[in-house]
Amino acid sequence: MTGMKENQSTKGTLRRRRTNKQVQADILSAVGRILQEKDFTHITLMDIAREAKTDPNVVLRQFGSLEQVFDCYIRTIDYWMHDLFGNKALKRGERSALERMFARMTDFLYNSPEMQRLLVWEITDVNDTTCRAAANRETYYREAYEAYERQFARGGEKTPFRQIASLLIAGTYYLVLHRHTSTFGDMDYDTPDGPVRLKKVLHEILDMLYERLERPQRVSEAIRRLKERGVDEQVIRECLKDL
Amino acid sequence: MTGMKENQSTKGTLRRRRTNKQVQADILSAVGRILQEKDFTHITLMDIAREAKTDPNVVLRQFGSLEQVFDCYIRTIDYWMHDLFGNKALKRGERSALERMFARMTDFLYNSPEMQRLLVWEITDVNDTTCRAAANRETYYREAYEAYERQFARGGEKTPFRQIASLLIAGTYYLVLHRHTSTFGDMDYDTPDGPVRLKKVLHEILDMLYERLERPQRVSEAIRRLKERGVDEQVIRECLKDL
Repeated sequence: MTGMKENQSTKGTLRRRRTNKQVQADILSAVGRILQEKDFTHITLMDIAREAKTDPNVVLRQFGSLEQVFDCYIRTIDYWMHDLFGNKALKRGERSALERMFARMTDFLYNSPEMQRLLVWEITDVNDTTCRAAANRETYYREAYEAYERQFARGGEKTPFRQIASLLIAGTYYLVLHRHTSTFGDMDYDTPDGPVRLKKVLHEILDMLYERLERPQRVSEAIRRLKERGVDEQVIRECLKDL
Repeated sequence: MTGMKENQSTKGTLRRRRTNKQVQADILSAVGRILQEKDFTHITLMDIAREAKTDPNVVLRQFGSLEQVFDCYIRTIDYWMHDLFGNKALKRGERSALERMFARMTDFLYNSPEMQRLLVWEITDVNDTTCRAAANRETYYREAYEAYERQFARGGEKTPFRQIASLLIAGTYYLVLHRHTSTFGDMDYDTPDGPVRLKKVLHEILDMLYERLERPQRVSEAIRRLKERGVDEQVIRECLKDL
């Protein structure tokens, strides 16, 4: 049916016959292309129809509404979360997996104008689609953080891992989104070197987190060694009390 | 002249006679009120004229262009930077001043819809006004960070203070801007408690920074004490090597 309609082009240009599935795929990839140029809030049904070489009515018949087009599109770009977080080493709470997750997230975000548009949309417009997209991401992060949260909560300082990691993610989002407007803290994140710089800062903070996590154990180890070498326990306690 | 014009109201309502200065002030405060409702990009000259109870032509005559109205307006809200950063304890690099700066910045941002609009504008639109506003903020932060940067660069680990502080600021911006859309890291920053939560996370990271800064000194102090108590230097070095 739709295929038939499609061939009756209003402008008389010959359009190839497409199945519903093909039309839907074409519409979604059209959204992706348009997002290279404009924000979600500026995209019209007409823009999409034009880019997908079809009629607005076809878009509506296939998806129901503009909102639903965006909803479906966002689901296709959120696949990367799967990629980024569906990782056994992360589930086991390995430090290297965490570092890698932050680094890959940064690279992915730099290379994904459509993801950047989504993040901008989420802070400019509170609607069903943006709320759903943000909430969906939350579930991925929640799972990714689980093992680390337990480790850090057990540590002597009870470091709130998830809140700290989230602030780092939020900061990464903002620095990437803001990079065309100005430097930030005198760092230019809008150069080919930008992702490297950003990853270095993230690495530095993760490093501090692990220093804190491991410190009580390091101090215990030092105490154990001093005892082994015959130093009096009372002396050790007094001398190391500020560590 | 302008005052005369103003009384010839197009809609026949009586307008009070205002000096140029008053009209300008009314226009700027009108912008502030409109920003409670909409983003910079959605404000028209007509919106401003209506809210300031004047004509668009008057707005143009007083400021030259819509962009210049925004430019002037932004200068009036950036006074807070002065307030936040024009602080001798900060210039001296005191830790408490740094903590206070982060806390006040968070509170200020929560309570300033117009500042939030500016930050959103900066990431949605790269133009002379947004670039200038962002660059202007850079100079404030640069000065504020100076003393701390020196302290942290001297520390054993050469911690890149400014980049870390900037990531925290960027994260704070994003979390405040995103708070209506969803939780972030399962934290709801859109409650009366939101600022308190956010300040706690910032405090935690600053704490880690200072732990790192002070650690070499604490270890030296422990070594000094152990020596004083007669423990052999070689033994101390071996036992404390991982601290």
